[in-house]
Order: sequence, then structure tokens, then C-alpha cells
Amino acid sequence: MMLSELCNTIQPLDEQAMRMAQKRWDQIAKPLHSLGRLEEMIVQLAGIHRTADLQLRKKAVLIFCADNGIVAEGVTQTGQEVTATVTENFTKGLATINTMAAVCDADVFPIDIGIAKDMQCAGLDVRKVAYGTKNFAKEPAMTRTEAERAILTGIELVKEKKLQGYNLIITGEMGIGNTTTSSAVFSVLSGLSPEMVTGRGAGLSSEGLHRKINLIQHAITKYQPNPKDILDVLSKVGGFDLCGMMGAFLGGAIYRIPILIDGFISAVAANCAVYFAPLCRDFLYATHCSAEPAGKLALDAIGMQAYLECGMCLGEGTGAVIGAKLFDFAWAAYAEVADFHAAHVIPYQPLQ
Amino acid sequence: MMLSELCNTIQPLDEQAMRMAQKRWDQIAKPLHSLGRLEEMIVQLAGIHRTADLQLRKKAVLIFCADNGIVAEGVTQTGQEVTATVTENFTKGLATINTMAAVCDADVFPIDIGIAKDMQCAGLDVRKVAYGTKNFAKEPAMTRTEAERAILTGIELVKEKKLQGYNLIITGEMGIGNTTTSSAVFSVLSGLSPEMVTGRGAGLSSEGLHRKINLIQHAITKYQPNPKDILDVLSKVGGFDLCGMMGAFLGGAIYRIPILIDGFISAVAANCAVYFAPLCRDFLYATHCSAEPAGKLALDAIGMQAYLECGMCLGEGTGAVIGAKLFDFAWAAYAEVADFHAAHVIPYQPLQ
Repeated sequence: MMLSELCNTIQPLDEQAMRMAQKRWDQIAKPLHSLGRLEEMIVQLAGIHRTADLQLRKKAVLIFCADNGIVAEGVTQTGQEVTATVTENFTKGLATINTMAAVCDADVFPIDIGIAKDMQCAGLDVRKVAYGTKNFAKEPAMTRTEAERAILTGIELVKEKKLQGYNLIITGEMGIGNTTTSSAVFSVLSGLSPEMVTGRGAGLSSEGLHRKINLIQHAITKYQPNPKDILDVLSKVGGFDLCGMMGAFLGGAIYRIPILIDGFISAVAANCAVYFAPLCRDFLYATHCSAEPAGKLALDAIGMQAYLECGMCLGEGTGAVIGAKLFDFAWAAYAEVADFHAAHVIPYQPLQ
Repeated sequence: MMLSELCNTIQPLDEQAMRMAQKRWDQIAKPLHSLGRLEEMIVQLAGIHRTADLQLRKKAVLIFCADNGIVAEGVTQTGQEVTATVTENFTKGLATINTMAAVCDADVFPIDIGIAKDMQCAGLDVRKVAYGTKNFAKEPAMTRTEAERAILTGIELVKEKKLQGYNLIITGEMGIGNTTTSSAVFSVLSGLSPEMVTGRGAGLSSEGLHRKINLIQHAITKYQPNPKDILDVLSKVGGFDLCGMMGAFLGGAIYRIPILIDGFISAVAANCAVYFAPLCRDFLYATHCSAEPAGKLALDAIGMQAYLECGMCLGEGTGAVIGAKLFDFAWAAYAEVADFHAAHVIPYQPLQ
């Protein structure tokens, strides 16, 4: 199916299931609404899964790994080769996300959606669209067809994970240069200046930051990406990881499975998905607020609020796996706490 | 030992251990400081435990349960008997904290520090100072001696838990009427008006809220508690749970064990502890920001910032157990992620 056809299949949340879930919360022996956003999290989940009789099963972290041609312009502290090295580390359990995902019992799936070299490692899911993007200082990052293929790949991956029994998807990424592409895309979508939405990524010098902002500004001036045409924006100044993550968010909505936003890059991909297919917003969960300057702005732009304020900016899905653990806490209360009758407590009354 | 003598034994954080812990973070194959506050959390832990060679062992939730005489004035939706009922539920595993503590592998210890009736249930640690406080609309809540005994009880409990092998303490409370006492104490300590720091607790009507604010204002006017004398404040308008929690925070500092603040009530007790013995602040961790109107103010007042914004106001330690899980995530990265050499990545450089 084509991208637009797939997105047309997205259905809203199931309001009946949501009402049932809230009713269940209101019967639990605790002050009404006292678990706040943990209650809302579960109610939304009921709307997604179309039942208040929820089950939490397996969690998957999809890490979209890709290279960015813009790295040639000196917008990063490390070289492009680090993308491949860290991706290999994901497959060997050596990276930060591996240890942190284990804490929330999530399985880690690194995906080569556009690494600049051929990768030979067991456990890597190779879905390469191209050997990295082009340097957008010189030419558009990718073709429109490539952007669409990368998005469809993200959608397909969610479908596969659902068939494998996962019912919660966590997004992550790895790609040297991807805060540059993300800031460029977000500047176009939000209308905010590159100065406002660009940061130091993984430790860029002040001189480098200045260069990064200028490159983004020049590219936007040169290509005039159309903010109402997400594929136009992504193909001109985006990255394959952004496209893949956008696809994953759309896939969450298409296949009705909750999908978690990680940090800034992930939030920009979520912006792309929501602008492309607004209904998909109800299938997303924000997790943490990235320390990148536009981390909060990118969540605000789609009306989402983080649960966690940890000042993190590592990527890989490391903030989102912590957010995923919140589901376990919320679910434990929802599924296991005694109701008022069993707890011998007179039910609380709603405010008049 | 007397309270003041015990507090005089508090020593500052071990800066050498903290430097070693930060050095370990800087060797891990990830951008420098990219785990943000998770890194700081562990560095503080090294300072508390006096070593960068950290071990996370058992976690204990101390739930201070007590009744408040002020309930007779109609400041709560439910009756005083709910304190005893829910406390009994803690011992039977029926309450919210039981299921949520299990998610972070914490053991739950309910403590009767001042419930209005005699409790007969296995698993309840009875340290009753009195059968509830007096109604502070009519007379001071407790004597100064009672306040001191309740604080010493909290200190003693932390010591015992440490001897039992716990090395992380989570605070929680249960006591109908304890947002009233907490707002009263916090109003005195902060100098903020009762209107600003008083909320609906577990679902109070607007009429009830108005009554609650007036009662607090009248008591402050009548007794003129001295904000520089914490025992004076607590004995006039406090509660045994507040005193016990304040003791637990002091105990964390005295026995060098990290101790987690839960919601509003817990944060007010932390204010008492920090005002009483300022060095104890470095042994505390904020966790979530309570939905009570003064939840954030009470953390701000002692310069602490929550990690979690979940809109919770249930108490019992339910927010703090989620915070406790953050230690597991931080520790997993600190202890298990490969260093730059093993990860085949060239180390990142600090910003100039």
C-alpha cells in the first residue's frame, strides 16, 4: 500500500474502552485521579488497544541508525565512522541503551536504515535506503522516493514487531550529525529561527555551533522547503533516521500500538508524523524532555508534555526506556490494587 | 543521644569519591554529561557512600502512619478511621504502594507512629508516640517532647534499615488530615499565606477548602509558631507522620544513606529537616512533583527539583518508588556500559 493509503486507515481512539478504563481507576481504593498522568496513560492505552482489559506484553526499542552527509561540513565533534561503531556496539550489548533497556525489560533492535558503509554484524536489521544522505550544504539530502521508502520501512517495522508479540514500541536513533538535520527540519516546521532550535548535540564547540546554525539557515534559504509538505522538508534537509522514526510513529497509529518519543530527534520525527497524519498523535507518548535547546519546544509543538526532567541528551532511546517503565508502575496500580470494597474503604466522591 | 547531638555528627559529602564517580562517567562511551541528572544522581550517591565503587542493594519504603486531631473540624472528605484501614491494607499488600513498590523491588514497611487506635496486624511496626495529635483548632497538636520522640523514631528506623542491608530509603505517609498539617507547617516555614499553600488533598469540596485555609490561618495567628524553631512549629500545627519523616531525612544524613522525598507532605518534612540541620540536604533526592498546589514550592524552598512530572498526589511513597527506579537506570549505565576503549570510540572532548 502507498503511504497515504496506509495513513487513511488510522482510526481514532476507542472512547468506550477509555471510559471503561477510567471507571476501573475510579473503583480502585485511592483518592480519585490521584495517580494523575499515570491514569491518563492507561486510559489512552485502553483507547489504543480498544479494551480496558489491558495486558502489557513485550517492549521493543527500535533504533534507527543512519549517516548524514552534512557531517562533512564540520557540524559534529566526532567523525561519521562513529555511527557504524556504535551501531555495532548495539548488537554486542556494549552501548548505553543496551544496559538501560534491560532495566525496563525491553528488547533492543538496531536497524541500519542508511549507514554510510556496509555493516556485517549479527543482530543488525539491515534496511538500508542509501549509504547515508547527501551533504545538504551542496545538494538535497535525499530524493522524495528515498524519503518515502524510509518512512514505509518504519511503518513496516512496527507491523513486524506487533506480529512478534510486542505491544509497546520505544523509538531511538544513532547517527552522527542528526541534531543538525533535526534542527533544520524543526526550524522549517515550526517557523522558529535556526538560532532558537539548534544546539551543541554531542559536544560541539561554539565555533562549530555557529557554523551549524549558518548551514541550516543557508539550506533553508536555498531550498525553501515547504512546511506543509513533510516529504519535501525531509528530502531536502532531513535524514533517514528521521524518516524511519516518522514511519514508526505512523505505524503505531496504523497498527494500534503505543509508541514512545525519546529526545529531540525523536520529537522532531513525531512532529513530522503528526503534521502528516494528525490522528497519529493519540498513539504517541512523550517520555523525557531533552536537554537540547529545542527539546521542550518540539514536544510543545505537538501539544505533548514529558514525564521526566532528567537533562538527558544521549539519544539511542535512553530516555524513552525510562518512560516505558512508567507503564509498568501505572499498570501495576491499575491491574493489581484492591478496589474500595476489597480494601474496606468507602469510595471517594467526585468534586461537585 | 539527643537530637541535636545526633545531628552534629552529620558530615558533608565525600568530594574525592564524587570526583572519582564523575571520572568514571567521563570514561563511558557516550557524549560527556549526556545522561544529565542521572550522572549527578550517582555522583551524589558516591559522595554519600564515600566511594565511587557503588553497589545498589535493597530499597525500603518507610510509611509513616498517623492520625491528626484537626480532622474533627471537617477538613477531609473521609473520616479518620481510613488511616487505620489503609495502614492495615499496607500490611496485607492491598494498597497502591504495595504494587508499585514491587515494580522497583522495594520492601514496604508501614509504621504506626501515631494512629488513633490500637492496631493488631502482622507486619506493622508499632512505634506509636500517641493516639493521634490533638485538634490544633483547640490546642497545640502535640507536646515538644512528643515531637522530639517522633523525630528520633524516624532517625532510629533509618539506622535499623541500614543494619538490615538496605542502602536506599524511600519515604511515604498515610494519615487522613495530613495535607492540612503540612500546609500549616509549610506556611509558617515559607512565610507564604495559607491560601497559597493549601489544596484539596484527597478531594475536598470548595467549602471544605475554605474551612481548611481558615483553620490554618487561625492556628498560626493564635500560636505564632516560630519558623526558626522547627520543634515549636511541629508541636503546634504538625503531625507525627511529619515528625517521623523529618527524622528519617535526618537519619539519612546521620547514617549516610540516600533518602527519597515523595510528594507534598514528604517535601514539607524535608523542609523541616533541612532547616533543622542544613547539611542533611545533600543526602536527599527529590523524585516527583506533587499535584498539590504547593508541591513544587516545597521543593523549590530547599533548592530541589523533581525528576518526574506525573501530576500525582496519592502519597504512601507512590511517586518516590518511581524515582527510586531511576537509580537502577543510572546505575546500569554507570556500572555496565563499556568505556571508550572497549567500545572502540575515540573519547569525546570537554567544551573549551
